[in-house]
Amino acid sequence: MKVGGQHFRTIWLKAENERVVQLIDQRFLPHRFVIEEVSTVEQMATAIREMHVRGAGLIGASAGYGMYLGTIEAAARPAVAEFDQRLASAAEQLKATRPTAVNLSWAVERQLKNIAEGKTAEEKIALALRTARLIAEEDEEHCRVIGQHGLNLIQQIARNKAGKPVNVLTHCNAGWLAFVDYGSATAPIYAAHDSGLPVHVWVPETRPRNQGSKLTAWELGEHGVPHTVIADSAGGHLMQHGEVDLVIVGTDRTTYTGDVANKIGTYLKALAAKDNNVPFYVALPSSSFDWKMRDGLKEIPIEERGAEEVKQTDGWLDGRQAEVRVTPEGSPAANYGFDVTPRRLVTGLITERGVCEANEKSIRALFPEHAP
Amino acid sequence: MKVGGQHFRTIWLKAENERVVQLIDQRFLPHRFVIEEVSTVEQMATAIREMHVRGAGLIGASAGYGMYLGTIEAAARPAVAEFDQRLASAAEQLKATRPTAVNLSWAVERQLKNIAEGKTAEEKIALALRTARLIAEEDEEHCRVIGQHGLNLIQQIARNKAGKPVNVLTHCNAGWLAFVDYGSATAPIYAAHDSGLPVHVWVPETRPRNQGSKLTAWELGEHGVPHTVIADSAGGHLMQHGEVDLVIVGTDRTTYTGDVANKIGTYLKALAAKDNNVPFYVALPSSSFDWKMRDGLKEIPIEERGAEEVKQTDGWLDGRQAEVRVTPEGSPAANYGFDVTPRRLVTGLITERGVCEANEKSIRALFPEHAP
Repeated sequence: MKVGGQHFRTIWLKAENERVVQLIDQRFLPHRFVIEEVSTVEQMATAIREMHVRGAGLIGASAGYGMYLGTIEAAARPAVAEFDQRLASAAEQLKATRPTAVNLSWAVERQLKNIAEGKTAEEKIALALRTARLIAEEDEEHCRVIGQHGLNLIQQIARNKAGKPVNVLTHCNAGWLAFVDYGSATAPIYAAHDSGLPVHVWVPETRPRNQGSKLTAWELGEHGVPHTVIADSAGGHLMQHGEVDLVIVGTDRTTYTGDVANKIGTYLKALAAKDNNVPFYVALPSSSFDWKMRDGLKEIPIEERGAEEVKQTDGWLDGRQAEVRVTPEGSPAANYGFDVTPRRLVTGLITERGVCEANEKSIRALFPEHAP
Repeated sequence: MKVGGQHFRTIWLKAENERVVQLIDQRFLPHRFVIEEVSTVEQMATAIREMHVRGAGLIGASAGYGMYLGTIEAAARPAVAEFDQRLASAAEQLKATRPTAVNLSWAVERQLKNIAEGKTAEEKIALALRTARLIAEEDEEHCRVIGQHGLNLIQQIARNKAGKPVNVLTHCNAGWLAFVDYGSATAPIYAAHDSGLPVHVWVPETRPRNQGSKLTAWELGEHGVPHTVIADSAGGHLMQHGEVDLVIVGTDRTTYTGDVANKIGTYLKALAAKDNNVPFYVALPSSSFDWKMRDGLKEIPIEERGAEEVKQTDGWLDGRQAEVRVTPEGSPAANYGFDVTPRRLVTGLITERGVCEANEKSIRALFPEHAP
């Protein structure tokens, strides 16, 4: 999407040197637009773990490129046995960075399978490069198509709004910054806005890392989409007063039965949507489905991050990035990254193959190739 | 309660000069303990509006003392007619500071009624002083007794915990800092802790002003009560995983039918409590009941505060207070201070006269003097 009028993706190969990956280092947004160069598995693992890049699709694409860098590193050693060992170690290193995002292991496994088909190191590197590009391109295309399917839903709601903006509540950032382009939850919003349909987005700040107030607000603003930042607690109040026409969120992992892991606080918004008869949609490319997990609440691992993220808030002060301490020195904090929204609270899933209900039958009907 | 081992209330008359009110200026907590001196209505209105003092009971007590200062100011003019006019203007000024808190108008009206019984300015000042003290003392006593009633509930839960701590989730600060002493939601917690019953408190930070991570965490820490600060979004996840035994929150205004206005986000926690069969209690002195309002969602005015509170976070940096900017410069924000939790989501109300259900019949049975 657009940044200062110019089109960007979140991750790409450096034009002058295809052994270097470039990515938007999102830690400095919205106040500085920083492009980072990554040329080792170690650097990519750090970029994922420390959230220079984040979001379901982008974690997958980054892992794909990370595995490509892994083949280059592995090829630096002569013996083939050592190549495989080093690549396996790269795979483990990447998979260990973020436990909740299923796109991570999905991308790594896809790379391992494809790379194994190469006979020489050169072939393996070429296959890894092709797969990395394919993962990124598919992600982009899936998000674009999700936008078209979601646009239909927004158009239906717009018919009863008499020209007034359709109010969409989202959570966290499932925008283009969380993917390669378009985003999942934001794709229908961008599609509506670009087609001239008036939309307005409620953007919960999404503590503790403020991906909403930093990233979603920034990308919507850069693209010209009207939006308002709110505290995470405000969504229920807005729904009680008819200020939300639909909720669209993303997901880091959705079971084949329709349970949705997403940024902490998503479950609370789903409860409020149910209580106020507001449609609650989850937008996801099929790479975010976990075809092995039945019970999201029991099975999906929930990442616990460092307590410091809760104790402090970072932002900008006098032109530089700064962290202020909020809690008393002696008070401990806990930092659960995600929660699971049970399928009974989900109106529908918006995928690249269309909209389905959040249950096994409906999901499998769209993706029959994943039959058990 | 205790601060550094010494007992404090939130507001009191200066020992050396009874025409000066002293209060804890809560804007600097948890990092600095500042006592402010207030000697005019204007100063008290600013202290309430700018949240040097906040919380249902303390707003009432502050308004009571503010009206006392108002009688002193009014008496500075000779004519009696002018006294009444000036006092009425003080009353209006105080009532306009915070629209949601019912204790504010309750305390002002109580003062006006009592002051009217005085014949001379000196009598009026004396009556105002007595009433201000009485409002503060009643608040303290009501909170103390709420603690005893709530302690019974915690003891019942503790019987099934086999010595493990009872986990209480609260929201915002309905602690002693929100009252004159003890607090409403915290009173049962302090009572349990002081009686040797192990309790642990989940403290949501309560954006945008962070009364949880700043005030509740601080006062629990100073009193030695185990607690953990969490993001506002985390309550639902904790309940899904059995980590919350009961919820106790305060209220800024509760209708005689049991609808509860409290800090924004309370409604979401009530929904999660219902969804997970966790008891959800509201602790309140009877001064927080609104005996005129039937439908909380339609009738209780919800304060909208400045957008800057959402766009920025303040905390401490290098030993000084600092505000960091989080949102992009071009992004608007909205700041709803409160939401309304419908009575159907409330397990019970803990009042100074005991625990009742959140419905008109049960509330009126405890407070028959407010019969329509």
